Amino acid sequence: MGQNYYESEDLADFPGITEYAKKQGNKFFDYYRASTSAGKLSEREKSLIALAVAMTQNCPYCIDAYTNKCLSLGIGEEEMMEAVHVGSAMMAGITLVHSTQMRKIIRKKAM
Amino acid sequence: MGQNYYESEDLADFPGITEYAKKQGNKFFDYYRASTSAGKLSEREKSLIALAVAMTQNCPYCIDAYTNKCLSLGIGEEEMMEAVHVGSAMMAGITLVHSTQMRKIIRKKAM
Amino acid sequence: MGQNYYESEDLADFPGITEYAKKQGNKFFDYYRASTSAGKLSEREKSLIALAVAMTQNCPYCIDAYTNKCLSLGIGEEEMMEAVHVGSAMMAGITLVHSTQMRKIIRKKAM
Amino acid sequence: MGQNYYESEDLADFPGITEYAKKQGNKFFDYYRASTSAGKLSEREKSLIALAVAMTQNCPYCIDAYTNKCLSLGIGEEEMMEAVHVGSAMMAGITLVHSTQMRKIIRKKAM
Amino acid sequence: MGQNYYESEDLADFPGITEYAKKQGNKFFDYYRASTSAGKLSEREKSLIALAVAMTQNCPYCIDAYTNKCLSLGIGEEEMMEAVHVGSAMMAGITLVHSTQMRKIIRKKAM
Amino acid sequence: MGQNYYESEDLADFPGITEYAKKQGNKFFDYYRASTSAGKLSEREKSLIALAVAMTQNCPYCIDAYTNKCLSLGIGEEEMMEAVHVGSAMMAGITLVHSTQMRKIIRKKAM
Repeated sequence: MGQNYYESEDLADFPGITEYAKKQGNKFFDYYRASTSAGKLSEREKSLIALAVAMTQNCPYCIDAYTNKCLSLGIGEEEMMEAVHVGSAMMAGITLVHSTQMRKIIRKKAM
Repeated sequence: MGQNYYESEDLADFPGITEYAKKQGNKFFDYYRASTSAGKLSEREKSLIALAVAMTQNCPYCIDAYTNKCLSLGIGEEEMMEAVHVGSAMMAGITLVHSTQMRKIIRKKAM
Repeated sequence: MGQNYYESEDLADFPGITEYAKKQGNKFFDYYRASTSAGKLSEREKSLIALAVAMTQNCPYCIDAYTNKCLSLGIGEEEMMEAVHVGSAMMAGITLVHSTQMRKIIRKKAM
Repeated sequence: MGQNYYESEDLADFPGITEYAKKQGNKFFDYYRASTSAGKLSEREKSLIALAVAMTQNCPYCIDAYTNKCLSLGIGEEEMMEAVHVGSAMMAGITLVHSTQMRKIIRKKAM
Repeated sequence: MGQNYYESEDLADFPGITEYAKKQGNKFFDYYRASTSAGKLSEREKSLIALAVAMTQNCPYCIDAYTNKCLSLGIGEEEMMEAVHVGSAMMAGITLVHSTQMRKIIRKKAM
Repeated sequence: MGQNYYESEDLADFPGITEYAKKQGNKFFDYYRASTSAGKLSEREKSLIALAVAMTQNCPYCIDAYTNKCLSLGIGEEEMMEAVHVGSAMMAGITLVHSTQMRKIIRKKAM
C-alpha cells in the first residue's frame, strides 16, 4: 500500500535535524528562536505573522505548529483567520499588481 | 550609479543561453516549443495559460513575452485581464484552502 | 500512528472557512466566483488556466477540484495534460530566462 | 537602451487594473480592503503581516506599499525588521522541516 | 474515510505521464535526462543540487527520488544535510536581501 | 521619472541589515556563513547549489552574488549553466510529477 508523504508525526523530528549537521542545525535554531520569540514585537504578533507565512507557503508542518502556538497564546480563531486573509489577499494582490507591467505594454502597442 | 537587474533587453538574449550548454539548451527549447505551440489546445488557449502562469510566478520577462504573444494573436486586453484574474483568484484560494488544515486542528482542540 | 496532513475530505470544508471570518470569506468567494466563471473567456478556458496554475503551485486540493471541473466540462485528458505542459515548460523557462542575468555578469568579467 | 521592468511608478497604476475587467477588479479591491483594514486584528498587526508576506514573496511593489503603510502608522524600523526576520526564519524553517522526509528515508535504508 | 493526496506510490507513475501527451512527455524526459545526468558536472554534484532544489520547493516526490539517488551514489547523510542547509540559508537570505528595498525607503523618508 | 526597484547597488547594503535588528541579523549571518562555507561539501559544491537555488527562486541579488562567487572560485561558465539546467529541469519536473494526482482522479472516474 502507498505511503503517505506528509505525516504529522514528522514534525516531532524537526529538532532531530541537528543530527546530521550539528553546527549548521544549532545555528539555525539559534537564529529561528531569536526571530520568533518576543522582541520589539510580541510573541503574539510574531506568531500571527508566522501563521500567515506558513499559510501562503502551503507548509502543513508550520500550519500545524503555529495554529497550536497561536491557540496556546490565547489567540482566537477569528483573529487567526483574519491573519490568513491578509496573506491570501496579498497573494492575489501580488499577482494583480504585476499586471501593471502587462498594461504598460498594451498601452505602448496601442499608441 | 546603481545598475538595474531587470532589463527588458535581456529577453532578447534568451535564445543565446544555448551558448554555455548546447545539448541541454537545445533539448529545453525543443520541449518548450512542443509544449507552447498548438496541439490539442490552440495557440490562443496555450498563450492565455502561459500569461496566467507568468503572472502568478511574477516573471517580468515572460509577462513581456506573453503579453506580446497574446496581442499578436489578436487576444483582447479584457480577455488577457480575465486570464490574470483566474491566476490571482487561484493564488488567494490556494492560501485559503490550506486553512482547512488549521480549522481541523482548532476543532480538535475545542473538543 | 501519524496523521496525514493532506486529506481529500478537507476540500469539502473549503466553503466552511467563512465560519471564522464571515465578511472576508464572503467577499473572497464573491471575487473567486466572478474570476473563475464564464466572462470574456469561457468556463472551459478558465478551468484549463486554473488547472495549470494549480499544478505549478503544487496545490493538491486545487488539482483535485479542477481535474474534476475539467472532466465535468467534457475536457479530455489529452487537453488537460497539454495545459499542464504549458505550465511546466513555463516553470523551466522562468528559471532559464533568469540565467541571462548570469550571462551578463560573465560577459562583463570576461572583457 | 534597455528598459527597466520594475518601475516604482507602476504601483500608482494598481487601482487602474479595473479598466480591463471592471467586475473582477472591483470585487478584488472589495476583498482586499476587507482583508487588510482593521477588524479583529488592528491595522498595525495586519500591516506587519502584509510586510512579511510581501518580503517572503519578493514583491517590490508590495514592499514599497507596506513599508510606507507601516511608516504612516508609526511603526518603527526595528519592529518592521523583526517582522521581516519572522518571515525569513520561517522560509529557512519550511525548507528544513521538509528534511524530516529525507531523514525518514535514510533511516529506513539503514535498517 | 478521507483519502491521502500525497502517496509515495504515485512517484512510480511519473514515467506514465507520457500517456496523455506523448510528444511533450518524451521531449520533457529527454531534457530532464540531459540536465540531470553527468556532463561538465558529475552525477554526484547534480544530485546534490537537485536535492536542494527539491527541498526548497517542498516537493515530497523529488525529496524521495533524490534522497534515494544520493544514497545510491554513496553520498553520506551529512553531505546531504549540508546541501539542504545551503538551500535553507539561501531561502532566508533571499527574503532578507529584499529588505534592502525597505531600508532604502525608510532612509529616504528620514531625510 | 519612475524609480527602479531592483538596483544592483542594494546588494552592497546586505550586511547593513543588522542595523535595525542587531541580534537577529548577527545570528542569521552566523547561520548563513556556517551553511555556505566549506564543510563536508566543498565551497565549490555549495556555490553551485546556491546558484541553482538563486535561479529557481528568481532572486537577482543572489544570482549576482553567486555568479561572482562561482567565477572567483574558477568555476567555468559551462559548469554554471549545467547547474542552472538541473534547477530548471527540476522546476518542470516538480510541476509534472504533481500531474500523477490528476491522473489518479481521471482513472478513477473512467472506471
